[in-house]
Amino acid sequence: MSYTNLNEAIARLDEIEATVSAYSHAMGVLNLDASTAAPLGAAEGRGKTMAVLSGVVYNLAASDDTRELVAYLSEHMEELDANHRRQVEIQKKSCEQLVRIPQEEYIAYNVLLNKAEGIWRVAKIENNFAAFAPVLEKIVAFNRKFAGYYDPDKAPYDALLNEYEEGLSMQTLDGFFAELRRVIVPLIRAVGEKPQPDTGFLEQSFPIEEQKAFAKYLMDVIGLDPNYCTITESEHPFTCGFNCHDVRITTHYHEYNPTFAMYSTIHEGGHALYELGVDESYNGTCLSGGASMSIHESQSRFYENIIGRSREFIELIFPKMQEVFPRQLQGVTAEDLYRAVNKAQPSLVRTESDELTYAMHVMVRYEVEKQLIGGTLEVKDVPAEWNRLYKEYLGVDVPSDTLGCLQDSHWSGGAIGYFPSYALGSAYGAQMKHVCESELGPIAPFIAKGDIAAITAWLREHIHRFGNFKKPAAIFEDACGKFDPKYFADYLTEKYSAIYGL
Amino acid sequence: MSYTNLNEAIARLDEIEATVSAYSHAMGVLNLDASTAAPLGAAEGRGKTMAVLSGVVYNLAASDDTRELVAYLSEHMEELDANHRRQVEIQKKSCEQLVRIPQEEYIAYNVLLNKAEGIWRVAKIENNFAAFAPVLEKIVAFNRKFAGYYDPDKAPYDALLNEYEEGLSMQTLDGFFAELRRVIVPLIRAVGEKPQPDTGFLEQSFPIEEQKAFAKYLMDVIGLDPNYCTITESEHPFTCGFNCHDVRITTHYHEYNPTFAMYSTIHEGGHALYELGVDESYNGTCLSGGASMSIHESQSRFYENIIGRSREFIELIFPKMQEVFPRQLQGVTAEDLYRAVNKAQPSLVRTESDELTYAMHVMVRYEVEKQLIGGTLEVKDVPAEWNRLYKEYLGVDVPSDTLGCLQDSHWSGGAIGYFPSYALGSAYGAQMKHVCESELGPIAPFIAKGDIAAITAWLREHIHRFGNFKKPAAIFEDACGKFDPKYFADYLTEKYSAIYGL
Repeated sequence: MSYTNLNEAIARLDEIEATVSAYSHAMGVLNLDASTAAPLGAAEGRGKTMAVLSGVVYNLAASDDTRELVAYLSEHMEELDANHRRQVEIQKKSCEQLVRIPQEEYIAYNVLLNKAEGIWRVAKIENNFAAFAPVLEKIVAFNRKFAGYYDPDKAPYDALLNEYEEGLSMQTLDGFFAELRRVIVPLIRAVGEKPQPDTGFLEQSFPIEEQKAFAKYLMDVIGLDPNYCTITESEHPFTCGFNCHDVRITTHYHEYNPTFAMYSTIHEGGHALYELGVDESYNGTCLSGGASMSIHESQSRFYENIIGRSREFIELIFPKMQEVFPRQLQGVTAEDLYRAVNKAQPSLVRTESDELTYAMHVMVRYEVEKQLIGGTLEVKDVPAEWNRLYKEYLGVDVPSDTLGCLQDSHWSGGAIGYFPSYALGSAYGAQMKHVCESELGPIAPFIAKGDIAAITAWLREHIHRFGNFKKPAAIFEDACGKFDPKYFADYLTEKYSAIYGL
Repeated sequence: MSYTNLNEAIARLDEIEATVSAYSHAMGVLNLDASTAAPLGAAEGRGKTMAVLSGVVYNLAASDDTRELVAYLSEHMEELDANHRRQVEIQKKSCEQLVRIPQEEYIAYNVLLNKAEGIWRVAKIENNFAAFAPVLEKIVAFNRKFAGYYDPDKAPYDALLNEYEEGLSMQTLDGFFAELRRVIVPLIRAVGEKPQPDTGFLEQSFPIEEQKAFAKYLMDVIGLDPNYCTITESEHPFTCGFNCHDVRITTHYHEYNPTFAMYSTIHEGGHALYELGVDESYNGTCLSGGASMSIHESQSRFYENIIGRSREFIELIFPKMQEVFPRQLQGVTAEDLYRAVNKAQPSLVRTESDELTYAMHVMVRYEVEKQLIGGTLEVKDVPAEWNRLYKEYLGVDVPSDTLGCLQDSHWSGGAIGYFPSYALGSAYGAQMKHVCESELGPIAPFIAKGDIAAITAWLREHIHRFGNFKKPAAIFEDACGKFDPKYFADYLTEKYSAIYGL
């Protein structure tokens, strides 16, 4: 149909948004189930169902009707309210992209991703990169092709980066990472010359049932209401938000490494608080959920590191932790734990790495992806290049692909161009802390008295509530002014100089 | 479109079946998530998503295209293969029913059911029937109305019974239940005069983590492959099968009642083995899944009672159970456990009741439903009538609605007319045992040596594999001849006479 009546067109837009939201919700629950509860045998049936559902969404988004609707509304932007204006802007962009992706490729890609998760999971367990390589090759090929659909004028990897963070480019990242390397590399070296804190007390058995109870306590401390957010288990922790009343986080419990579940819970909890803080009126539209991966990561890492690894937070939670693990923490002080969870040391696994060396792990992935998508690295050579970069950036030898290039689920999920957001998010978070403190005063006293809600309220007001209503760069800049990596560099320098007595 | 080409029509039928299967799968996973993982806040968003998805299925099933397709194929039944013939038969029936249900009622009912589960859950916890009554009133009203759509020539409750078991009627059930009462009531009385086995050793703490490990062991013993079937937790145990490679069961762990999870796992495991045994070629069509509720219950109760409560099964699993619960089972023998899990005594909760008195619980629900749908009982009077019938049939006083008419999830799920299948299934199972033994010889030795697979193979060959390909009565009669409740009466008489020395 062609549109002539504005109210009718708006009503149709609302209907499309509600429909797409419903399908996204259903596919999201299928994915959540796949990672948390489904048996392996479920993959084939799920693949077929995903093909049907994603086909419907594709057809709807790429239909003449939707195109005409978006074209009509684009010509009436002035007459729309702000929410609808932003919806049209987003739909227009995604329409233009989708129309360029042939439907059979779109469906085939979704079918591939559905299988990829299971194959990656087994390959990781079995340290068998060769089993995952053919799938990764296809995922890379799809992404290179899609990059051309997304934006044929950009270098393919820039086009992919742009999918996760509008406006982000290799040029920006090369500069940002160079600046980080300039500050962090000497800091890591200086820290390495100092005696390391004792972490031996964390390397005993912490029974999983008790870790689960402690994770629930941590969720409560940071302000996650169990009526709106639940936690389950998966291979790799993640957050999945369906609307601002229904967000799920997952973790993975390691009996001999209690801080893994502890900090993954706070990290994913940060993602969850963000999604739970989005304006309720955006539910069921493309304005719900987070603005971008880097804004998301700024929140998760804010809660994980800036709050969760602060001395005041450790002092806050330590009595409960001693109550849950009395035997394991006998004779341990809050200060011992504070130093242990802030131990900075080059290591192999990104999700277990410390706040200081973390960005180095991200840089490895960035370099590998840049070359894979740029066509200068073949999938079969990924393990060697991965291991070479770990040696170069972190000085460590990678003993297996399980602990190397198979460690993350991102590539099996098709997320190429996502990793840089982690480092950018950390840097955003440090600048947010600076601005927040210039308004509220130091956050440490709030943490000390358990008033995380006061900090969340500031983040909600300046970041969370906007959801996808503003562009990520606008959200950040409206809240914090122009981005400057120096806040992150200063934060790390100050924190680690104090801890290690530099 | 109108159809003139048979192959084209068959291709369209295949497409519709695959589409409907995909939507059923998605809605099934949303429901599974609702009962096992979702926070309460998820209900509203899920309701909206369900409304969209069920609306699409309704529109597809009730469309002119589908009607014309089914009409065309119905005229070419002779030319179709057996699978397509049965698919057309099933689609024709559901088309005819669906077209009679106005779409807005269909959607409103699904939205209502989506809310009802959460309301029932809270009402049960809070012993607050008044909170659930308005919802139940609406569910009853919808069911009375739908009964007229299903079959306006039948009494409404007969029409509902027929939905779960084709051909079942109040007349049949009144006769069946009267016969059961004739045999069971004196048996219960005789048993009641004998000393009861000691069950005190089951009333201590059995930690939930260890119960979980034991449930996994039981799944292994009965032959459930974890690659195709996983177990999670929910308020009320259930099974949900998506295809013959993906079936989920749930249970509920009670720290002071280990046999609840133990037997619910075996019961749901029986449902799961049935669904896993359906012919693979039926996946993605309406022929997949079980044939009817009574055939389903015949399988679940076969594994739970005929196998799971046999002396040989208890002897088989007892060593492992002692290994998992050494302290709790110190000084207890397999014979003690055998007698304890077969203790027969009138009680309040159906899912915790014994094999002998179980059918009495079903009869209470049957009488209440018959009157509710017949219009001779108001929802507000359900608790009083429920309690009166428990006193009459089982001689027990019901102390709270939590332990009374709020105990089951069925009504909140819209399943009115389902309960009688439980008793019918038990009776079917006893007759299947008789026929199976006339072919294989006694099943006890197979159980004794842990060869449950031999029994499953027989059931798969004669029952499971047919899925929904044959009508339930045909499956039963082809395997076992004409239904006769005497096999069930004989089975119970023999078993309980031996246990109680009558």
